[in-house]
Amino acid sequence: MNLLLLEPEELQAGGEVRLADHRARHLRQVLGVAPGATVRAGVVGGARGKAHVLALEGDAVQLRLELDEPPTPEPSPRLELLLALPRPKVLRRLVYSLAALGVSRLDLCAAWRVEKSYFQSPFLEPAALRAELVRGAELAGVTRLPEVAVHPLLVPYLDALAPAAEGERRVLAHPGARTELAALTPLAGARCVRAAIGPEGGWIATELASLEAAGFTPVSLGPRVLSSELAVPYLVGQLQLLARAAEKP
Amino acid sequence: MNLLLLEPEELQAGGEVRLADHRARHLRQVLGVAPGATVRAGVVGGARGKAHVLALEGDAVQLRLELDEPPTPEPSPRLELLLALPRPKVLRRLVYSLAALGVSRLDLCAAWRVEKSYFQSPFLEPAALRAELVRGAELAGVTRLPEVAVHPLLVPYLDALAPAAEGERRVLAHPGARTELAALTPLAGARCVRAAIGPEGGWIATELASLEAAGFTPVSLGPRVLSSELAVPYLVGQLQLLARAAEKP
Repeated sequence: MNLLLLEPEELQAGGEVRLADHRARHLRQVLGVAPGATVRAGVVGGARGKAHVLALEGDAVQLRLELDEPPTPEPSPRLELLLALPRPKVLRRLVYSLAALGVSRLDLCAAWRVEKSYFQSPFLEPAALRAELVRGAELAGVTRLPEVAVHPLLVPYLDALAPAAEGERRVLAHPGARTELAALTPLAGARCVRAAIGPEGGWIATELASLEAAGFTPVSLGPRVLSSELAVPYLVGQLQLLARAAEKP
Repeated sequence: MNLLLLEPEELQAGGEVRLADHRARHLRQVLGVAPGATVRAGVVGGARGKAHVLALEGDAVQLRLELDEPPTPEPSPRLELLLALPRPKVLRRLVYSLAALGVSRLDLCAAWRVEKSYFQSPFLEPAALRAELVRGAELAGVTRLPEVAVHPLLVPYLDALAPAAEGERRVLAHPGARTELAALTPLAGARCVRAAIGPEGGWIATELASLEAAGFTPVSLGPRVLSSELAVPYLVGQLQLLARAAEKP
């Protein structure tokens, strides 16, 4: 935990907060705090700063927040992922990773090669998703959580997608693509990059056609087959590198 | 499994092989092969091609190999990772990923913030490591396995490291570094890139000093804290992108 993260409604008058859950346990048992200690803290979607430990009472920790730093800034360009829904165990680790990677939005989609039963996973419940996002943000030390949306039908979702706005780029990771991401220079000036990553076994032809019709350019991630668990940080790393390189004069 | 991978000593006269283990189960139950079917196959460290299914006998599958393609080529530049030993569960997933990512070598090292007990993990036994590497290579569809070495003492290992050869670049992922990887242009012409990734909580000052003395340049992976599980594919993606971009005229 690199940042103690609080939900806005947990804050009491005077900026005080009383924790008795896993965060209190972490503060006591892992960090070994005592009254007078200070830890990095922030509010989900809000400001960052310090939390001063006022008292330890039984299992609870009483804190006073001093949030004098701005929220984690929105990454530029924004990075949005469209991901064929992976199996629940993998999804859980991926969602946890998204805040750390600085992804702004995740659209979880159906695909022909996605098992329909994955959409029944209790892990797709909003509260379960949020808990994992918060855990990832705490580890990464950020207050900004990615937005997450679930789309049980891919093609209607793509057909309804508005055309790319000015400054938005859309790419599609596809093993057979002739274009390498490294050759894709027009990330200069991009305000938003939206990247699609397919299921194990890849997208089928009609899905590829819908994605291309929605403006996604197929790019190759190289000669090897990557699972979505690897492809996400791999592609995000490359996109952020290209975006940062494009910022240079 | 994108490639059925065999150990060289499994091959019998006439290029035949008889499998009765998890690979036979995969062929029968997941791929549903019948006599006459053909699957992609290869030999660890060797050639690639096809395996023709000759017969199904009880739980066993009898195959004849036709290996008419060269081995998976050595990536250029070679990519070598020096990684502070993560906890066994994370290590297992990382080792599995290395073949898929095209990493040529992994040096697992001690560090002040690595728990000593991790070095007792049964997963560091050569046979266990190899099984996971083979599983990753099967998924990635490659015959080349990364070399893995374990170094229970970091500083003596670094002190004994030969200076970087001509065409070798050494970088060190470090949250506080002022240089961004994107700004590190001299990957052009590199024959080997060696990258060091620290433990949770980072390297301590004396470790950083030893790494820098051994020629590792600190680079930042951006403003967020990444676990080694994320940092590895993230950094590998960036290094491969920089190396491929450098190949362009």
